[in-house]
Amino acid sequence: MNEIKIFCPGTVSNVACGFDVLGFCLDKVGDEMIIRRTSKKGIYITKIEGYDLPYETEKNVAGVSALALIEDAKPDCGFEIEIYKKIKPGSGIGSSAASAAGSVFGINELLGRPYNKKILTYFAMKGEAIASKCEHADNLAPAIFGGFVLVKSITPLEILQLPTPDDLYVTVIHPQIEIKTAEARAILPKEIPLQKAITQWANLGSLVHALHSNDYDLISKSLHDEIIEPYRSQLIPHFSDVKKAALKAGALGCSISGSGPSIFSLSKGIKTAKDVEVAINNIYKTTGIEFDMFVCKINTEGMKIIS
Amino acid sequence: MNEIKIFCPGTVSNVACGFDVLGFCLDKVGDEMIIRRTSKKGIYITKIEGYDLPYETEKNVAGVSALALIEDAKPDCGFEIEIYKKIKPGSGIGSSAASAAGSVFGINELLGRPYNKKILTYFAMKGEAIASKCEHADNLAPAIFGGFVLVKSITPLEILQLPTPDDLYVTVIHPQIEIKTAEARAILPKEIPLQKAITQWANLGSLVHALHSNDYDLISKSLHDEIIEPYRSQLIPHFSDVKKAALKAGALGCSISGSGPSIFSLSKGIKTAKDVEVAINNIYKTTGIEFDMFVCKINTEGMKIIS
Repeated sequence: MNEIKIFCPGTVSNVACGFDVLGFCLDKVGDEMIIRRTSKKGIYITKIEGYDLPYETEKNVAGVSALALIEDAKPDCGFEIEIYKKIKPGSGIGSSAASAAGSVFGINELLGRPYNKKILTYFAMKGEAIASKCEHADNLAPAIFGGFVLVKSITPLEILQLPTPDDLYVTVIHPQIEIKTAEARAILPKEIPLQKAITQWANLGSLVHALHSNDYDLISKSLHDEIIEPYRSQLIPHFSDVKKAALKAGALGCSISGSGPSIFSLSKGIKTAKDVEVAINNIYKTTGIEFDMFVCKINTEGMKIIS
Repeated sequence: MNEIKIFCPGTVSNVACGFDVLGFCLDKVGDEMIIRRTSKKGIYITKIEGYDLPYETEKNVAGVSALALIEDAKPDCGFEIEIYKKIKPGSGIGSSAASAAGSVFGINELLGRPYNKKILTYFAMKGEAIASKCEHADNLAPAIFGGFVLVKSITPLEILQLPTPDDLYVTVIHPQIEIKTAEARAILPKEIPLQKAITQWANLGSLVHALHSNDYDLISKSLHDEIIEPYRSQLIPHFSDVKKAALKAGALGCSISGSGPSIFSLSKGIKTAKDVEVAINNIYKTTGIEFDMFVCKINTEGMKIIS
């Protein structure tokens, strides 16, 4: 096999009570990449469609993660990468993670899978770091492993795959505004009240238990974030109206995807997820702000080979 | 049935990363109580052996929780309570919780079980509150339900029973010093660093996953507390030596039980738990401080009827 075409899924990180540690993988929404073995050694970004991103390997997240892999693998060949970008950079659903993870996933396939998914995540973190200015894996690991993933720690890298209830659907709205990552980070407090932290870890423990027990009611009771959301939601116009409408339409929970501006809702069943979409659409269509929306299942496979 | 004799187990709360929300139940270590139906209405503490505790119903935790139950149940009789106290008050392994939970558990049995375990926990909280000056349930719920219990919230009361791996054993040392609850509480910070809180909720999420997956290695990696333990361990002489010795002897983790002074270690298998006991004993026997120690299994039943 000298060429592979892959699907690189979008992901939701900072899942409510799981700030910085919990993410899940989206179905249908993602980039495509073609990776081609070349006789010339090195990594070459040969095509980028969809969004304007750097072609220089060292400045492109897919390039940097690929370089990390080949530095270790030292293959007797090189790779060309074509990126068909569909996830808008800065939308909050893991655009850079899809690229960073896609290149290493694809190259690993072409090399006959010398690396496991955890090591691929490690390589991908090198690429993700140039986009987000720090190493984190809560978009990368769900993109690579699929389903719900708890990133227990970065150093050492500890990735835990959690069960994904069958009937869980996601509704995402992406308001077309720009939130600078630096701003989204600067707005967070360095210190938080102990009592709120206790509530947060009770909720995360409960959410993990709920995923294991297939308990949708408990998922709903656990999907709260009293720590980050009150700050970051200020950067997203009409966040509180969207959340109210989503919950009223039957969503199990609703919070900020990544550092925003996208907002995700989780629902039991596709019908409710679509009702939630309609309800949020009704709120946002009156705001004058452009937006995209979609409904999809949780993707339990992660990266997929298209051909 | 007019009389019942029950076993009221000790419990470990504040299980490392699960401060204020996670507890588990001890086997073999606990009080005994005899509860007897009387024609005279009301709750009467008729005997207390072991430790000096108040006989006035309204000042005794077992009395107060029993009053909360009969206020709701309005039975056409009263109850005498005999308390054979074996868990030393203030030891940090749920002495007051054993009493508060025991009386309502026993009365509920004599009344033909009108209440479920969650409601019994609710009544017991009324008794526990007079001992600890605030309502909490992370000793009560494990005493009543058995096993590992996550108290997701107090208002409303949400109790989650977690799986207990079969081969999990506890080693407890109780140094005979007094830690005032007020002091143990006053020493805690009101605000904590966000980064440490993130580590804590990652660890608790991971611990819940580990209990579901029977993953002892992950239990070990998750049993950390960077938030409370650094403060409260200062009140327990030689804590850090005990912890080092326990981990060196093979314990999965070691932290403060409740608000101390007891220290618990969890181990895989009774042999390791006993090795841990020896290692801790070697540390403490040179200190001149009196202490008790025991090794037991996790009790997955909770309260038990003896006769």
